[in-house]
Amino acid sequence: MSGTVASAAPRRGEPGWIMSGEIAEQPEVLRRLLAEGAPAIRETARLVAERKPRFVLLSARGTSDHAALYAKYLIEVELGLPCGLTSMSTTTAYGATAHLEDVLVIAVSQSGGSPDLAASATAAAEAGAITLAVTNNPDSPLAEISQFHIDLLAGPEKALPATKTYTAELMALYLFVKGLRGEDGSAAAQVPDLAAEVLERGDEVRHLAGRYRFAERMVITSRGYGLPTAKEAALKLMETSYIPALAYSGADLLHGPLAMVDNISPVIAIVTEGRGGQALQPVLDRLRGRGADLVVVGPRAQVAAASGGFALPTGRIPEALQPLLEILPLQKLAYEVAIARGQDPDAPRALSKVTETR
Amino acid sequence: MSGTVASAAPRRGEPGWIMSGEIAEQPEVLRRLLAEGAPAIRETARLVAERKPRFVLLSARGTSDHAALYAKYLIEVELGLPCGLTSMSTTTAYGATAHLEDVLVIAVSQSGGSPDLAASATAAAEAGAITLAVTNNPDSPLAEISQFHIDLLAGPEKALPATKTYTAELMALYLFVKGLRGEDGSAAAQVPDLAAEVLERGDEVRHLAGRYRFAERMVITSRGYGLPTAKEAALKLMETSYIPALAYSGADLLHGPLAMVDNISPVIAIVTEGRGGQALQPVLDRLRGRGADLVVVGPRAQVAAASGGFALPTGRIPEALQPLLEILPLQKLAYEVAIARGQDPDAPRALSKVTETR
Repeated sequence: MSGTVASAAPRRGEPGWIMSGEIAEQPEVLRRLLAEGAPAIRETARLVAERKPRFVLLSARGTSDHAALYAKYLIEVELGLPCGLTSMSTTTAYGATAHLEDVLVIAVSQSGGSPDLAASATAAAEAGAITLAVTNNPDSPLAEISQFHIDLLAGPEKALPATKTYTAELMALYLFVKGLRGEDGSAAAQVPDLAAEVLERGDEVRHLAGRYRFAERMVITSRGYGLPTAKEAALKLMETSYIPALAYSGADLLHGPLAMVDNISPVIAIVTEGRGGQALQPVLDRLRGRGADLVVVGPRAQVAAASGGFALPTGRIPEALQPLLEILPLQKLAYEVAIARGQDPDAPRALSKVTETR
Repeated sequence: MSGTVASAAPRRGEPGWIMSGEIAEQPEVLRRLLAEGAPAIRETARLVAERKPRFVLLSARGTSDHAALYAKYLIEVELGLPCGLTSMSTTTAYGATAHLEDVLVIAVSQSGGSPDLAASATAAAEAGAITLAVTNNPDSPLAEISQFHIDLLAGPEKALPATKTYTAELMALYLFVKGLRGEDGSAAAQVPDLAAEVLERGDEVRHLAGRYRFAERMVITSRGYGLPTAKEAALKLMETSYIPALAYSGADLLHGPLAMVDNISPVIAIVTEGRGGQALQPVLDRLRGRGADLVVVGPRAQVAAASGGFALPTGRIPEALQPLLEILPLQKLAYEVAIARGQDPDAPRALSKVTETR
């Protein structure tokens, strides 16, 4: 087992068996969302498009905040609408009253149960916004408060680190934004099969995990559509393995944190095949020039030029859909590193599944 | 010197003498901006207000991105305008064309020389936006491209870690947002004297620095107006000391990264006196309950309830201006920790002052 961390799929009741099961469910979840959820999402998009939003605000926390960031890229690139992520405390703590006529406010939340999201959505509706909730629970307070709701149909998520609801959020938001353009988003149809192929390559991830078992810190970087993946991967590693994992846009990395990268700080780069990956190239060159331990998740040629990595079938899928595949080996990596370090990925210390921030 | 790190103000040519000098200049820089810059800022605000912007987008990187986040809170709370931080790559890498009529686009940059900011501002103007640049160089490309410009008048900044241009950016943005409301922002007049008082207490910071000399990682948290301070403090520590410093909103901390905080991960909390600080209270309670090493920068009573800290004269200044004081001991902390670790804060490895991201 030289350089690798040995572990097979856990049996029921073993540490990580819930997270491991939910990671494996993702192709099925995505297939269900495409088959059963997509028509309602397209209809919601049609109704929202009739309201002609001019500006979009996204509200979310934790993993869902990374899905919101993905949606921000999609909305800016595909729709040309100015878009922002909300600072919820301006409403919930400071009581700011916004002017939100023709503003679409999208709240993204697995549980739909966080009180600050519900308060923020209520305030947005009162301020004249068009409100949409994307949740995994149509009976949740957030879903009920919002004018429109998209159901992720992902089934109950029980592990504390969110996995299947993240990729379901990405897929739902992709279909919704395509719907706002009057398109059916049919390129997404190939994602479930590609996701299944990627998830079958567990041995490769286990091999990579050996490299991080004793890591004191990690840097994860990307640009464009891959940036939400970098942030989500960092959160997964932190909440399962407690490794301080710092996620930066490649551009921001050059503005300071690069000083922290050296030959004892491993770097993972998420490289899309497309314009984001091209924009990241100078950063990859700088990292190689500094002798960084650089692992790439992305196109085969980029993996071959790095210290290691996980090649994705990026050539078979538009750049905007690559994030649905990119996160899969990284979810498994977080799981494998946690197991290798003797921790239980299903139940990180100190966390509860519905976080009651106010 | 039990528990403390000894260091006096460095002499010319010693490591950190440039950064140390620029930190000390801040009261004078803020005084100059109030005396010589404020009338032009108010006039710019008057002209921008006539254009009746409905949305605001902010573009920046690195330290200036934290000043932009501060402005986002101010704009949302004081003006009730929806506001977003731009993802520059959507324009520069993906070529997205946005619809920006009645959108105010504010670019914040010390040098005004970063090509991606200039490209982003050009694209915004072409898309119909009102464009404003906030820079320390009126002859910079960014200043020339933008319809409006605010000059920070901070004098040349030579150390790589930005200090005086950060507080100048905060002050300029405060005066501008107050100006959009037709107010003169006169509460800011007391900031330079309070800043000088805070900066005189170098011994207290040196004492705190001893605690972090051997730290492998740090968590910095806040909510509301203090959050930009948390992010800027983390960047300062990383770029001078190379300590992985993770900055989170208190709300996001509860959604995952809290698992990483334990009795070997010190936490610094930036506690405002006001609603942000109140919203952070449950997070402070959770951290204390977990036995975290908690250092507070904020009101005296919060410092007294923590493991240590640096008390600020928060009672003498509105919450929205407290960030101008909060960052001062943290800039000095980054300097002191770097010196204690034998590094030169003036010239972090791998960085150049004008970062040419595209």
